[in-house]
Amino acid sequence: MERHFASRMATTPKSFVREILKVTEKPEVISFAGGLPNPQTFPLAALADAAQRVMAEEGTSALQYRTTEGHAPLRAYIAERYQQRYGLSVTPEQILITCGSQQAQDLTGKVFLNTGDRVVLERPSYLGAIQAFSFYEPSFIDVSMGKDGIDCTELSEVLSEHPAKLLYVVPNFQNPTGISYTQATRQAVAELMRAHDTVLVEDDPYGELRFEGESLPPIAALAPERTILLGSFSKIIAPGLRLGWLCAPCAFVEQFTIAKQASDLHSNALGQYLIARYLYHHDVNVHIRSIRDLYRAQRDCMLALLARYCPPEVSYTPPQGGMFLWVTLPEGLRALDLFHLAMEENVAFVPGDPFYLNGRHARTLRLNFTNADPAAMEEGIIRLTRAMRRLMERTPIATVPSY
Amino acid sequence: MERHFASRMATTPKSFVREILKVTEKPEVISFAGGLPNPQTFPLAALADAAQRVMAEEGTSALQYRTTEGHAPLRAYIAERYQQRYGLSVTPEQILITCGSQQAQDLTGKVFLNTGDRVVLERPSYLGAIQAFSFYEPSFIDVSMGKDGIDCTELSEVLSEHPAKLLYVVPNFQNPTGISYTQATRQAVAELMRAHDTVLVEDDPYGELRFEGESLPPIAALAPERTILLGSFSKIIAPGLRLGWLCAPCAFVEQFTIAKQASDLHSNALGQYLIARYLYHHDVNVHIRSIRDLYRAQRDCMLALLARYCPPEVSYTPPQGGMFLWVTLPEGLRALDLFHLAMEENVAFVPGDPFYLNGRHARTLRLNFTNADPAAMEEGIIRLTRAMRRLMERTPIATVPSY
Repeated sequence: MERHFASRMATTPKSFVREILKVTEKPEVISFAGGLPNPQTFPLAALADAAQRVMAEEGTSALQYRTTEGHAPLRAYIAERYQQRYGLSVTPEQILITCGSQQAQDLTGKVFLNTGDRVVLERPSYLGAIQAFSFYEPSFIDVSMGKDGIDCTELSEVLSEHPAKLLYVVPNFQNPTGISYTQATRQAVAELMRAHDTVLVEDDPYGELRFEGESLPPIAALAPERTILLGSFSKIIAPGLRLGWLCAPCAFVEQFTIAKQASDLHSNALGQYLIARYLYHHDVNVHIRSIRDLYRAQRDCMLALLARYCPPEVSYTPPQGGMFLWVTLPEGLRALDLFHLAMEENVAFVPGDPFYLNGRHARTLRLNFTNADPAAMEEGIIRLTRAMRRLMERTPIATVPSY
Repeated sequence: MERHFASRMATTPKSFVREILKVTEKPEVISFAGGLPNPQTFPLAALADAAQRVMAEEGTSALQYRTTEGHAPLRAYIAERYQQRYGLSVTPEQILITCGSQQAQDLTGKVFLNTGDRVVLERPSYLGAIQAFSFYEPSFIDVSMGKDGIDCTELSEVLSEHPAKLLYVVPNFQNPTGISYTQATRQAVAELMRAHDTVLVEDDPYGELRFEGESLPPIAALAPERTILLGSFSKIIAPGLRLGWLCAPCAFVEQFTIAKQASDLHSNALGQYLIARYLYHHDVNVHIRSIRDLYRAQRDCMLALLARYCPPEVSYTPPQGGMFLWVTLPEGLRALDLFHLAMEENVAFVPGDPFYLNGRHARTLRLNFTNADPAAMEEGIIRLTRAMRRLMERTPIATVPSY
């Protein structure tokens, strides 16, 4: 029956990560592969209490069909928080509640992309977004990332060469590299978007997870008329509720609403009521501070372990927030080869390959630091660096670039 | 910025229902328009209890990222129930949990439809499915419904004329007509699917809501290798949890899983845990029996009121289950004209138009009977039939068919 599948199923990147992560599920494996929040950050007691109250006081509403746009108090809270944090003038009508940011990416493809439309990505880029957009069969092009964010000279050239429908970026603690955009880069991106009449998709799942340094306003503040800003409760409350949002001009939200109605009618109402109740009855800033403190300590722990155990030829980013370190192997080595050796050592990570368009032979890899206790983290880094040494002994380091 | 939207946004049927239903939201309006389950059927206390236990005993799992396929105990329960009810040999691997049946329709479009592929629908058909498939820009064709289900002679002609990728049907208490397929029709559909190598999408949200007569096995039992059978918890537990499923051959489920991962990673985990716990600790058959008893009484009430108040020129179906009556006005009258008069009387329904491809000037309309108490129902039918009389007085009844 395979001949019946749509052609887009053949062009979609095979779920490389699904495949490789299957082997990491054995209990003896220490995994730095996932992007899971640490479950000890889930406000379990508060959500249990909220569940009881919602069921007792508004259970009938939380269990009935609701509007596609989402629970009004939740939309109001999100709009108000943008106002408080960054002085953005966002109205509740600009907020659409989605089934995680992942759905917002899918809906963006649905609303904006014709087959062959150009989509510009960061190099490397978040693989979930590459997958979501791929289903709409665009033509992708990527632009280098530097330490200040996307390379705006290269971006300007790419946009001048050929008009692009969308630019997708993660300006805070990017997945996978951990890089954050400076204010100058944000400003330059906003200007390029306007000059080339491109729509910006600004994905911000980690913006609240800054361990140090100053929070910068979203690029949406600089180009509000053309930016779709994505947010998520997955990293600050809990991912299992599958709730996020998009914030966009009203004319966009209208189209997103039509698309979402056809996709799933609306996001689960009980989860929306739980989160709204949690947010209105607790100080979420205190909660977020405790997540930041935990993750900062975990990042510091992993950086200290790498400083102690890692071969000096291997480099890695020290991110100011988020959930990931980005490791670069010496030229001539391949992260996928390291992955196989690491699996022999019972430690897992995500090789860089799926974060690149048609990525092959990447020498980069992503390590998650939020979801392991210190003892397991040390053992995991010992195993991983042992695998690195084995790879380096096996493969003479080339002097030609491998990627 | 409208020029940036994808062309599919222009070809998608404007959300007619969203527009007309806006005017029905005034508190003084008695509405037969929605398709809402009666909230008194929600097992509120049992779900509140389940919520407490899930949070206490497996809260961390229910709040974390989970697999795309869905919660294993829930998939096992659904497979087992098909076995028990109809003797179908379905394995848990054939079940994918979705964000309501609506998402299953969307994923079906995503996995199967290339632009221009032919999709065969019932005439009239469920408008939510028309919308979901429209986003993949197929070419639609519809086939008449008779009292035994889809017209298989016409279906055979349509399939012989031009190969179709999909046939979408609702064989139990169809939305909107309330019609159910006989066993002979089911058999003929299965044979035609096989003869013309077409994939069947069998949507069954109402199958458990049979008030009388014998339950027939799904068409999936007759053509399991090519059928995507959709089910939903919306009508037997609660729609606000947004949980349904699809049951399909494993090779299909694999593609659906890739598509769903890109759409929203997975359905909300807390809702899945709640429903699984509810199903494993309660006799859902007793619960479903109570819903059937309530809806049977409500259907009987509406039929009695129509028998009493309705002009004899107007006909309507007496369905054996489900949630809707389907009313046909005399030739020459238009349901949309009736709608405007009815709104003056503060009573609402859904005119037939959006259930037809490019539907215009339909003389049919859908009445929901599950979500009004008897007193409101009587007042609503009095108002509606008054509007019918006003329309009939205003419009001389034509002798030529209008649709």
